[in-house]
Amino acid sequence: MTANNNLYFGKVAIIGVGLIGGSLALAMREQGMTAEIVGVGRGTGNLEKAVELGIIDSYTTDVREGVSGADLVFLAVPVLSIAGVIEAAAPALKPGAVVTDGGSVKETVLREVKKVLPPGVHFVAGHPIAGTEFSGAGAAFPSLYQGKKCILTPDADTDTAALATVRGIWEAVGSNVTEMDPKTHDAILGAVSHLPHVIAYALVNTIAGTKAQERSAIDFSGGGFKDFTRIASSSPEMWKDICLMNRTAIVEVIERFQGELETLKTHIKDGSSEGLKKDFGRAKQVRDTIKN
Amino acid sequence: MTANNNLYFGKVAIIGVGLIGGSLALAMREQGMTAEIVGVGRGTGNLEKAVELGIIDSYTTDVREGVSGADLVFLAVPVLSIAGVIEAAAPALKPGAVVTDGGSVKETVLREVKKVLPPGVHFVAGHPIAGTEFSGAGAAFPSLYQGKKCILTPDADTDTAALATVRGIWEAVGSNVTEMDPKTHDAILGAVSHLPHVIAYALVNTIAGTKAQERSAIDFSGGGFKDFTRIASSSPEMWKDICLMNRTAIVEVIERFQGELETLKTHIKDGSSEGLKKDFGRAKQVRDTIKN
Repeated sequence: MTANNNLYFGKVAIIGVGLIGGSLALAMREQGMTAEIVGVGRGTGNLEKAVELGIIDSYTTDVREGVSGADLVFLAVPVLSIAGVIEAAAPALKPGAVVTDGGSVKETVLREVKKVLPPGVHFVAGHPIAGTEFSGAGAAFPSLYQGKKCILTPDADTDTAALATVRGIWEAVGSNVTEMDPKTHDAILGAVSHLPHVIAYALVNTIAGTKAQERSAIDFSGGGFKDFTRIASSSPEMWKDICLMNRTAIVEVIERFQGELETLKTHIKDGSSEGLKKDFGRAKQVRDTIKN
Repeated sequence: MTANNNLYFGKVAIIGVGLIGGSLALAMREQGMTAEIVGVGRGTGNLEKAVELGIIDSYTTDVREGVSGADLVFLAVPVLSIAGVIEAAAPALKPGAVVTDGGSVKETVLREVKKVLPPGVHFVAGHPIAGTEFSGAGAAFPSLYQGKKCILTPDADTDTAALATVRGIWEAVGSNVTEMDPKTHDAILGAVSHLPHVIAYALVNTIAGTKAQERSAIDFSGGGFKDFTRIASSSPEMWKDICLMNRTAIVEVIERFQGELETLKTHIKDGSSEGLKKDFGRAKQVRDTIKN
């Protein structure tokens, strides 16, 4: 398959060749969108594996060497590192290059990136909503993004042509692209993704040290509890970064949640049958609108 | 297959012929444990269906008629109704009959049942940890309890022979039976089942009316949110009853959870990288000990 000329890149640099970065590399290759993909990372073991698997053509641990001459740079690194990596790469970034990312927090990242981005280099903030429970180059596969949502969060400074290019890439690999402002993205993801993770961690910590844990009684939960807390096995390192980078939105939504929970607790304490029926019923009604 | 003589019942009454009651009826029949099963319920549509499906031999909407002459009575009705149904049935209960239930709250149920149980009739409080997302007689199947946990919560007043009988029934239908005191049962289930339901309801109510809902952005959550909130589609009526019946244990565990969540929120607010890493890590460590 030959891609649209505007979507052909002489050299692509993928910084962070794991599930997210590796899958984009494979998908772009499959779509004939590039001649050369260079992987950049810290650990050579994963990068060597990525070469063996045909995900990247070559690799380097030197970010400047990696981005040198690249027309497209994709950052699949922890949100806390994005601006720092761009700052380190800055002297080697080619004028006119398009730099984009896959981080799950946008407003603070965008603000920090602006401070370090060299003139003439275009940054487009993005967030593909895709993933599996696996990580590393070995987990990458070309169809990861097919049928998935991808959010781009341009602001007034975003270059229109670069935005169109990044949109084109995600559409070419099968994603449904939505644009929204960074603040809205962070509020939405704070509510539907970051808050549930914080809750799951808090819930597991609640069980730890109780009778429920003593009796290995998680076995008595009938499966629901396991599903409910699976995300508490997510990387503490990554989620710590996300929480700190999306601090304002997350604290706000935690406080909304605390208010809702307090209301339910008060109903239970007061024996308010009517209150519980109303508030449980309201939740059921909303939840039932979501397709399983 | 022929059952142990002690586990053969001339007449069994199943009060509430849905997934739980219907599946026990089918499993007992399969094990040759009874000659006759009478179903008791309020709606004749479901009871007629249960007869057609061979789950029960006959039915009645009159609880006294249903339990009359029964050697075993199984109550699969909402926890709030258990004692009331026994009270209504009391004049017709046969001396020596064994009465047991499948409710997910035990201490208050047991206390209420004691007030209304006629002398010479034995009550054994039980809780099979099994279920599917479906309900009604049509959802019942004989292998529902195979390999599942079943908790029995005897106290000092529980008849030893009746307890052995009820244990024998659950073991015969394939369950792994555990005995514990009612208070421990309620604390454990409060933590691993009731609390997650309350949290899921509160979480969905948090999303309702936010930007996340406006933008139909639950689609942006990547699957995790859907799994996390599926239990908020559970019956508000049933969960209201459970919360009210297990009020003390649930309020206590909600408060523990509120403390853990407040700690995480404080770490996020304060930008405490170390605190988040420690407390997320603690949760991950506990969660990782649970098999998926």
